[in-house]
Amino acid sequence: MIFNLQKKGEKPIYEYLYESIRNEIISGKLKSGDKLPSRRQMALDNGIAEITVANAYAQLVTEGYIESREKSGYFVSRDIDLIPETGVKKRREDNCPVKRFLCKKKESAAGDKTVNLSNSGLPEETFPFDTWSKLARRILSEERSECIKAPEVRGLQKLRESIAGYLERSRGFTPDPEHIIVGPGTEYLCNVLLSLLDKEAAVALEDPGYRNIGRLFEGSGHECHHLPVDENGLITSELKGKGIKLLHVSPSHHFPLGCVMSAPRRASLISWAEEESAWIIEDDYDSEFRFEGRPVPPIVSYEQDRVIYMNTFSRTLSPSIRIAYMVLPAELYELFMDKFMYHSGSVSTLEQLTLASFISEGYYERHLNRVRNYYKKRKKAIFDIAMEKTIAENFEIEGDGSGMTFILKCKTDTDDRYRQVLAKHGVLINPLKEYCFETSDYSDNRYVVNFGYVNEDQFKNAALKMCKALRVKKCRN
Amino acid sequence: MIFNLQKKGEKPIYEYLYESIRNEIISGKLKSGDKLPSRRQMALDNGIAEITVANAYAQLVTEGYIESREKSGYFVSRDIDLIPETGVKKRREDNCPVKRFLCKKKESAAGDKTVNLSNSGLPEETFPFDTWSKLARRILSEERSECIKAPEVRGLQKLRESIAGYLERSRGFTPDPEHIIVGPGTEYLCNVLLSLLDKEAAVALEDPGYRNIGRLFEGSGHECHHLPVDENGLITSELKGKGIKLLHVSPSHHFPLGCVMSAPRRASLISWAEEESAWIIEDDYDSEFRFEGRPVPPIVSYEQDRVIYMNTFSRTLSPSIRIAYMVLPAELYELFMDKFMYHSGSVSTLEQLTLASFISEGYYERHLNRVRNYYKKRKKAIFDIAMEKTIAENFEIEGDGSGMTFILKCKTDTDDRYRQVLAKHGVLINPLKEYCFETSDYSDNRYVVNFGYVNEDQFKNAALKMCKALRVKKCRN
Repeated sequence: MIFNLQKKGEKPIYEYLYESIRNEIISGKLKSGDKLPSRRQMALDNGIAEITVANAYAQLVTEGYIESREKSGYFVSRDIDLIPETGVKKRREDNCPVKRFLCKKKESAAGDKTVNLSNSGLPEETFPFDTWSKLARRILSEERSECIKAPEVRGLQKLRESIAGYLERSRGFTPDPEHIIVGPGTEYLCNVLLSLLDKEAAVALEDPGYRNIGRLFEGSGHECHHLPVDENGLITSELKGKGIKLLHVSPSHHFPLGCVMSAPRRASLISWAEEESAWIIEDDYDSEFRFEGRPVPPIVSYEQDRVIYMNTFSRTLSPSIRIAYMVLPAELYELFMDKFMYHSGSVSTLEQLTLASFISEGYYERHLNRVRNYYKKRKKAIFDIAMEKTIAENFEIEGDGSGMTFILKCKTDTDDRYRQVLAKHGVLINPLKEYCFETSDYSDNRYVVNFGYVNEDQFKNAALKMCKALRVKKCRN
Repeated sequence: MIFNLQKKGEKPIYEYLYESIRNEIISGKLKSGDKLPSRRQMALDNGIAEITVANAYAQLVTEGYIESREKSGYFVSRDIDLIPETGVKKRREDNCPVKRFLCKKKESAAGDKTVNLSNSGLPEETFPFDTWSKLARRILSEERSECIKAPEVRGLQKLRESIAGYLERSRGFTPDPEHIIVGPGTEYLCNVLLSLLDKEAAVALEDPGYRNIGRLFEGSGHECHHLPVDENGLITSELKGKGIKLLHVSPSHHFPLGCVMSAPRRASLISWAEEESAWIIEDDYDSEFRFEGRPVPPIVSYEQDRVIYMNTFSRTLSPSIRIAYMVLPAELYELFMDKFMYHSGSVSTLEQLTLASFISEGYYERHLNRVRNYYKKRKKAIFDIAMEKTIAENFEIEGDGSGMTFILKCKTDTDDRYRQVLAKHGVLINPLKEYCFETSDYSDNRYVVNFGYVNEDQFKNAALKMCKALRVKKCRN
């Protein structure tokens, strides 16, 4: 299938490709059930990158024009005539895949009827606007000479010291503030770490796991391994002998499965890193939201020489505050400074000073207590709703009681079309397989629910729609 | 010369190396005039990276223990006994190279007697604290739902639109706000661009030029060319046939020489990029500070398909605000979105909203007028001082009347020892050769003055000390 890319004009290629295939479907040239070329073939045929085809196909899947069947490929949807947009020839402005992607959060944040169970934003009422505003104003008025200075590349000392104090109080280890590196997000920090590796070093992460970190590791030019996870966390026996020098892992609370890495696995993880001189990124992203039981100590408290402790304020404060941090082992700190000593800082001085005061004056820990209670209450209410008859007949919850996500497992199998039907009914939800890379093999009936942004009523509404859509599908099959 | 690195303990290697050599000098084992191994040899001898040796040597040069003689190598200083610290065995806490580096700005910003003519910070009185504070407060109170949303990877639409409007009004071209990418500094943005290149692509920049961008390009894994500059800007005939796919250049005002790229050079630059399908980063860092004459139109106004326009708010507002931006050509925008579409934004939403309002409500252009007058007045006063007899006998100014830096040329030759004597007299200044990479060959008598941070009295004080130190040196020779 070859398209005339000369005609694309100023459009990005994937947009042109997406439109061209869509037009073939709408005009009837491609019929329900027709098979599309593989992504690779389509890329070769048109002399374009496979990722470009993947983006165009993904958009067509999302909009229901085509469907992906496991191990078979892509097909024009069976129920193409059910899709409301079919036949509408005029391309809507917001149909551009990039724009649609970028608008997703906006749409769902608006008070419309759509319930977005995959939104990782936080509710407005949890952010400490008044305190933040008060602190920023005070700094802009009383610390003028400080707040117009360029921040150093590691982050301001004041903030690094606040973070070190917080970690000592809350996570039971005492990092050297000199070795803390502040950056505008965990992706940025992971990128910094990747840049410190030798070219031939391999990297690895958990499968399933974070999609963004996965894309970053895959695109880094390093050999990238996706390692399986079971109910005890990462299967550490898979680590050996692969030349892995950097591993991303979340032992305290796996994303998205929610399991905690067992003590024997932790021990073998540490021995592996010591034996093979590898670095472990301990992503402790969710540790503040342990609602019951004792907090799980981070592995960095047992092994400081090989473990990079990493965390962010995106979940505890807001994803709009682009501040994350990592604690580097001494050897890695030296490599970092050799490479980045003369670089500019990456986080605004004013925000760093505001956050430093927020932590060191005790606001942060009070805020954490408040939001922990807030989410604990919400999670309990949502779990109770999931036990109600209609919902419990169709779904069950997996995962422990902690963290900001859980797995909703459908008792019958579902597929891509189910998700399309849900989207048409105003429920957006990500299947677990979207977080899977190579090794993990989860059937199509598990969904990841991010409950920070939806309240219990919205969840109930969505869950009932999910039950209804299940019946619609059953009737149709 | 081999050191026992086992003994370094928790210190970074360069710090240990720096201390070890310093101790050899203090204890008299290394004597005045002794030659040190080359950086390469020292690295090989000790099995460490050459950059580590370079950092240790640089620190020893700065502190006057050793000196670098052109084409001969490094020697223990001839006047080692004149250095006040010699003989002091106890290592001062702040002698750690990294710490000293990081403290430099702090020291010079403090009201002590040192005049730092290389500080690129901005004076406190130029920052619009009240307006900034007012806007931030208003946003935190009135735009709550906006300001806790995660920013998209390109930057917020509101800010991109404000920037597009500003560029249209001030720089005479109309970028598509969709193609503007916001990031926490030009280094970050250059890094993004480097990551979009094929591995075998070569990169290039001006020589002399920005040290940080130079380090970034050199460390990127791409073949890196440093291309010569004359009074008409980059010598564009040097570009051809090298496989260069990304060039960093500042045609409107070269840093640090201050020249403007001539029209024929601009034309040949554009043809080169078109012929070889290369990307040009037009770093327009200084264009707001043209104090006289007509503003120079950016090359992006002639050629949008190959030119990436880049600028920052670090110089016009403050280096503490980590916001820079670039305008991508359509083809490159597509590559960017393919790679980064799903990534998180890198600049805090609140700062983006504040800056967007600052620009769109007209504050930014009023602010620019104010600071342009402020620096114009200061530059004139400084140029007048440089014409005073004592100073003019020894120094002359090079460069046109625009921008925030100028070249101070000493009428007699100077060397590293001169700079050490100056440092002891409380004048910090960077020789032009520090901004040189491979090709440029400037003798040792040109210095780069960053005058934003020093007022006319401080400059006069420093210039008189520079004259005095010149006499001291002459007497001693």
